[in-house]
Parts: sequence; structure tokens; C-alpha cells
Amino acid sequence: MLRNKPIRGALLDITGVLYESGTRVAIPGSVEAVRRLKEAGVGVRLVTNESSIPVAHLSTKLEGMGFEVREREIISPIPAVLKVLEREKLTPHLLVSPQVESEFAHLLSNQTSPNCVVLGDAGNAFSFEALNKAFRALKTMPSPRLIALGRGKYYRHEGELHLDVGPFMSALEYATGVQAEVIGKPAKEFFKAALSDLGVSAEEAIMVGDDIEGDVEGAQGCGVAGVLVRTGKYTPTSETHPCITPAAVQDNLGCLVEALLVGGI
Amino acid sequence: MLRNKPIRGALLDITGVLYESGTRVAIPGSVEAVRRLKEAGVGVRLVTNESSIPVAHLSTKLEGMGFEVREREIISPIPAVLKVLEREKLTPHLLVSPQVESEFAHLLSNQTSPNCVVLGDAGNAFSFEALNKAFRALKTMPSPRLIALGRGKYYRHEGELHLDVGPFMSALEYATGVQAEVIGKPAKEFFKAALSDLGVSAEEAIMVGDDIEGDVEGAQGCGVAGVLVRTGKYTPTSETHPCITPAAVQDNLGCLVEALLVGGI
Repeated sequence: MLRNKPIRGALLDITGVLYESGTRVAIPGSVEAVRRLKEAGVGVRLVTNESSIPVAHLSTKLEGMGFEVREREIISPIPAVLKVLEREKLTPHLLVSPQVESEFAHLLSNQTSPNCVVLGDAGNAFSFEALNKAFRALKTMPSPRLIALGRGKYYRHEGELHLDVGPFMSALEYATGVQAEVIGKPAKEFFKAALSDLGVSAEEAIMVGDDIEGDVEGAQGCGVAGVLVRTGKYTPTSETHPCITPAAVQDNLGCLVEALLVGGI
Repeated sequence: MLRNKPIRGALLDITGVLYESGTRVAIPGSVEAVRRLKEAGVGVRLVTNESSIPVAHLSTKLEGMGFEVREREIISPIPAVLKVLEREKLTPHLLVSPQVESEFAHLLSNQTSPNCVVLGDAGNAFSFEALNKAFRALKTMPSPRLIALGRGKYYRHEGELHLDVGPFMSALEYATGVQAEVIGKPAKEFFKAALSDLGVSAEEAIMVGDDIEGDVEGAQGCGVAGVLVRTGKYTPTSETHPCITPAAVQDNLGCLVEALLVGGI
């Protein structure tokens, strides 16, 4: 048994679990797996650190691959950071993918100097000059705040490893001495928001991901059973991590759901 | 008195002490200050983390500003890392300024995969793709080694702050879990090599710099009195650092040498 209680909620990572980064094709079995979970009465939320495209595009992309998911089922850092910025009346300096800049348009101001830096997965926009600008912005703020959309180390895209937002967060932390606030996995608030949205407790939920740290360790830090799948950026060393033991390891999401619903793990 | 013993050696930072970054003009009084030190029998070594141009170019640049210095008086990370690479028969993957790549040409090999990454002040060459390549190189090495030429946080260039090599070192450390080996200030071996080259003990030497951490703290970690000058990237907060107290603070190198030779500090 994965859990003592029946599983009522499944938090699923998107990239590397539903589809491989750089492709527009679902990982075999994953479309059916999501459908089967829902049919079995298990609530599903897609818990992602994807910050390089707007949530609406992500939702459309998933629908295009055959997934029956709605935008409101996606828990992603962009809507979460927008809420924080609006609530705290912050004016951000953005270092994000050009594709998501427009999401922040209503918060930019010609009158007010930025009072925080929002750092997303900017990909090729992580140039020396863009990093310098974010650094200088932090150095001129009386009370600098660095908000990172996740703190992942790297991801696999079109078969190659790419640096995720975490290393750039670390670079700006090192240069400024400012400790980043993380919005996204593995922040506890992020997992809790997903559980709250589903209306289930941590003991009734599982988190499925390909990232032994961001997904598995992050979830387990909130009492959610973390399941590792052997897709996405998984490598065999993920299973021999010195400190993190997943609640289960399965070849892919389809196998996990089969085992859950039929095998009774 | 800066020291109990007479001062027999002066280690001088270059950028921000002899000239301001981005200019080709000596800071007023600094040319004469170097000359006066030498005339007074104080051995001089220029101890720099400059890794964006070859030492020979740096020497020529300084001569062009009027400094009477020879290439062999410059202690810089490039010759130091070349010695390490040659001694340990390492094949480097380079993430350095294009201007210094040719210094490493004899160590590159088409036959041998790189077994270390050498990270210098690459400036605009710090692109997302170049950082990804260095990251992937480290990920594929059986025993990855990351050698950073200094670990400075930032420098002032043409009036603006720019990220130095340290933040990018931190980014690669974060992504890979590999701890960098630093060649350059503030590594003790680097200061010791300068002292040994001069033939003076730490107690007989001073280090003059504009960087409260890399220069002042670094030198003091080896028992060399660290003097801060109010040029280069100095800001008033350098003088109120919570943990580091310079042996002296002077407006510039000229004032310091005047105070040393005439004022008897």
C-alpha cells in the first residue's frame, strides 16, 4: 500500500511525466492514465514549475496531445506569483521567457522603480546582459527581493540537458547576498495550494514526478507520498539518491496508475 | 604602523587600483606610487584575477598607461591554471573569454574528452548555450572538476556593475553538485605564490585592493595586511562590512604610498 488511507488526490508533474520536453506527443499510456484516475474518483492536479509559456498555452498544448485537462487543473508558478505581486503591490523587474512577459504587463509601471526581481525559466533569454540587468536592479533596491519560479537544477529538452532556473537563482543569490523566495516546487506552500484546491489532505495524496528532488523530496516534505517515474529526466542515479527514497518507482505514469487501480500498491 | 616589521613587499590589485575598468588611463597618482614603492626597496607584485585578456596584453596595457611593470611581476590566474593543467595532464573544457582561448590551445585535444571545466571571466560569452555546454561537460565526466579563475561577485566596468566569474561558478556548482576549485584571489595558494615570488613573508607584506572580500579578507586570511582603497568598485558599505576590518583605508594608491613612505602609517 502506498498510503494507509485511500488515495483521493494525484498531483502530477507535467514535463517528463505527461510528455517529454521538446515533443508534442504524450508519453505512451499517460493520456489514458489521467482519464482512469479521474474515472476512479481520484482528483487530479497538474503541478508544474513550467514558467516558459502561459498556463493557457500549456493547457491547449496538453489538449492537443489528447489529455482531458482544464486550465484550472494546472497549478503553475505564473498565476501563483501574479497573486503575490498583486497582493503585495510589487513592481517586478522581469527575467523570464519572452513568451510570458505579457502576463505581467499590468504590474509594470513607468512611475515606480521595480522592488523585486521575478526569475523564471528564461531559456535563451538568460544572456549576460539580462543577468547583469537583474543583478543591477537588485543592487539598487532598498529592500531587494528575488522571487524564483522554482529552483530546479536542469531539465532534458530535445534529448539534451539544459540549465533550469535554479542555477541562475544561485548566481544572483551569490552576487547579491539576497536569498531567493521560491514560488513553485519544492516550496511547501505550492504543494499545499494544490492539495487545498483538490480538497484532500496530504495523507490522501500522491505526487508523481521525474525529479527526485523537486517532485519526490518536495512532496514528501509536506507528507505527500512521492512517486518517481522512469521517464523525463530520470536517470538510474535518481533511484540511488543517498537521502531520498520514493514511496514507489514505476516505469511511467501508465504503469503506476495500472498498479494503483488494479495491482493495489 | 600597518605592520610590526618594515614593509618589504606590496601586492597590488590592478583593476580599480591602478586604473578604472573600461578606461586606459591610470588612476591619478598610481603610476608614481608604483615607482615610489620600487625606489623605496619595496618589492611589487600585481595580484589580479583578470582572466579576460592574456597577461602579455595586460602588461602592454599597463605600460601604455605609464606603469613601469614587467609581465613577470603580474600574478594572474591564467598562467597559474596553465601550470595546474600541464602538471596534472588535464584536458579542459573552456568557458573563458574568446581573447584568452588561444593560451590553452596546446592543452586541447581531439582524442581526449575534457576532464575539467575551466571557468574564467567570459563576459558576453556567458550565454545560456555556453553555460549549458559547460554543464553537460561536467555531467559527462566520471570525476568532474570545475576550476574557477577567481570567485569575484561583480566588478564595475564603464560605470556599470557586471557579474564576475563567481556567480557563474555558483550556478554550475548548484546545477552539478561539484564544488569549484578556485585559482586566483582569495585562494591562499595564490597569495602565497605572490609572496614566494617576491621572497617576503606574509608579515612583511601588504595587499592593496578595492574588493573588501577578494582582496582584503583574502589577504588577511594568509596573514597579509589588507588595505582598502576608495577607488574601483569601492562603495561606502565596504567600510562597514560586518566581519571584515581592513588594516587601513585610503582614498587611493597614491595616498596610501604617501602615507606609508612619508606619514609612517
